[in-house]
Amino acid sequence: MESVVNLRKVAIIGVGLTPFDNYNDVSSEDIARAAVIAALKDAQLERRDIQYAIFAHLYQGEVLGQRVLRGLGFPEISILNLENACASGSSAVREAWLALAAEQFDVALVVGIEKMARGLISFVSADVELALGNVAPAQYAMCARRHMHEFGTTAEMFAQIAVKNRQHASQNPNARFRDLISVEEVLASRPIAEPITLLECCRNGSGAAAVVLASENYIRRHGKDPVWISGSGLSSFISDKQSLDLTNFGATRAAAEMAYNMAGLGPEDLDIVELHDAFAQGELLHYEGLGLCKKGEGGRLVHDGDTKLGGCIPVNLSGGLLSKSHPLGATGVAQFSELVWQLRGTAEGRQVENAKIGLAHSQGGTGLEAGATAVTILSRG
Amino acid sequence: MESVVNLRKVAIIGVGLTPFDNYNDVSSEDIARAAVIAALKDAQLERRDIQYAIFAHLYQGEVLGQRVLRGLGFPEISILNLENACASGSSAVREAWLALAAEQFDVALVVGIEKMARGLISFVSADVELALGNVAPAQYAMCARRHMHEFGTTAEMFAQIAVKNRQHASQNPNARFRDLISVEEVLASRPIAEPITLLECCRNGSGAAAVVLASENYIRRHGKDPVWISGSGLSSFISDKQSLDLTNFGATRAAAEMAYNMAGLGPEDLDIVELHDAFAQGELLHYEGLGLCKKGEGGRLVHDGDTKLGGCIPVNLSGGLLSKSHPLGATGVAQFSELVWQLRGTAEGRQVENAKIGLAHSQGGTGLEAGATAVTILSRG
Repeated sequence: MESVVNLRKVAIIGVGLTPFDNYNDVSSEDIARAAVIAALKDAQLERRDIQYAIFAHLYQGEVLGQRVLRGLGFPEISILNLENACASGSSAVREAWLALAAEQFDVALVVGIEKMARGLISFVSADVELALGNVAPAQYAMCARRHMHEFGTTAEMFAQIAVKNRQHASQNPNARFRDLISVEEVLASRPIAEPITLLECCRNGSGAAAVVLASENYIRRHGKDPVWISGSGLSSFISDKQSLDLTNFGATRAAAEMAYNMAGLGPEDLDIVELHDAFAQGELLHYEGLGLCKKGEGGRLVHDGDTKLGGCIPVNLSGGLLSKSHPLGATGVAQFSELVWQLRGTAEGRQVENAKIGLAHSQGGTGLEAGATAVTILSRG
Repeated sequence: MESVVNLRKVAIIGVGLTPFDNYNDVSSEDIARAAVIAALKDAQLERRDIQYAIFAHLYQGEVLGQRVLRGLGFPEISILNLENACASGSSAVREAWLALAAEQFDVALVVGIEKMARGLISFVSADVELALGNVAPAQYAMCARRHMHEFGTTAEMFAQIAVKNRQHASQNPNARFRDLISVEEVLASRPIAEPITLLECCRNGSGAAAVVLASENYIRRHGKDPVWISGSGLSSFISDKQSLDLTNFGATRAAAEMAYNMAGLGPEDLDIVELHDAFAQGELLHYEGLGLCKKGEGGRLVHDGDTKLGGCIPVNLSGGLLSKSHPLGATGVAQFSELVWQLRGTAEGRQVENAKIGLAHSQGGTGLEAGATAVTILSRG
């Protein structure tokens, strides 16, 4: 298509999150409010400066954004609520980016929030296999098994991902699980769906994350410190299982391609990645989907230590979902906190020196059969 | 803000809907699919031509859009699901317009769908007054009472709106309730929250509506018949009741102002309006919010017959929610079907001659305390 529209540059100028935890006695509105206040403070903005807000969640009821901002005494700005399974948060960042890039607003707030209750994940059981137990761990297990069969990937390699992310988490005060673990401990933990063990699964959690975005002209005028959104991609997976190539995460490839094309960058340009490690096995497959290595070489990447702090492309320096737990709507937004801190150079014990370009990836849905994947590329300096 | 972005023109090139009804034995996915197929047929497009899809609903579960399109064998395009109470459908049209205007895609599909079950409206009862019974009819009743007190509006005037919309519906084969009713029958029907009677309330319903949008360059290249999106506004209401001016629907004013400004038009330029008549009393207040008359003159507008077919600004030629029933996520999208048919000149017995400019308005939320309002202006010829 011929390009005639010159979109404005848009950046993240503030991030905030709550630690992820149980929050049994706190309302989802109040959890979200804590993240909003933190992000406003980080951006050094007032409530009246925000012109647009998008809220991402799955289970917190109707017009959540309106209810949250009403309780904070916000002005009556444009507000949108959206859902895209575990990619809700990153889908919301994409919509906010688009509205600012297209000059509808100058400053926007994105909030991801989930208060999880036991058994809350109620993905619709229209799919008979899902209803019979072919749930996410089972589907990821099939992918992992197939990867082991095709490429010689080992259970130890998957376990090393869980170990790596916990190592990163040990340096992240916002991570929920910070105790170091060993490959032996991971492999010896309770089997969930072989080869996936308990320590290779993320845990449910509650929490919220917020980011403030602004247009380039606003940033120049107000002297804000920008982390630019250089690329954005959104894809879906809606294939029948019969046609699935289990070791090819096509939606990750498609969303990454959109984002790389927009940014004019490739995987070789990335300094850091936060990706959707709901399962350690998923992280490995997403390496390949994002092009961090060729298909089949994910195990090699882990084995060589390339994706840990000090490696050539550190992944999930925050500790990932495996260490933070996974409040569905918040997860995708929280990735931006880590990337922004890294690109600002304020990530302390887990800081990647001189990081300039980062990628956020999140994916969610009903197993591998119906879902969304979003990829965003951030850059600074 | 200085304008530097020249967005592309975007138009609706296809509409489709299911009649609204019970559909007890049909899945929400299949209801949505019927509307998708109808809209594709109207646009004379194939599934592979659609590059982006947005689904609007409140209660149909996670990644609904992905599940619906998977069942239709769609390609793995970008898909988003969103919620903004009863303004979900129109909010989705806004997001699709923006993505095409900003050159992210050339062709998009928007689907609004709701399968309602008895008692399904579960607006979160964090608000104690709402939990105690201050629900939507009660809140609209207070507004109506205040309007009667301040401006001398009469119960007969509200009833005339219900009569008018049923008159329009009698000429709409897609309307659910098509029997003519009289002012006397409306006033004698069961009281719901005085002065609101049963025949002044919309009924729950299930159904779906879909529209296909395309960019100007795509339309020129493929010879499609466009109804242009000339203006779009999205606002919220999040005020505390204490500060509410009950006869001033501020969110309607705010969203309309955004849309009028974008279109470079005013209420005096409109030929037809579809607005959110969840209650006949609401329709009257929205007249004033949209600027169809001055504040306090809504009753006069009805009394003079200005808003019925043949009047100077016909409103709800489809029959409105009062005659169609109200499948929450579908309602806002269905308004575009009526406007497109009218602007194409194919609305038969209820056609407004030479209609060129139309406005769609929808609003929803938890009573008057937390919600969204969206306004869209369409033009043709």
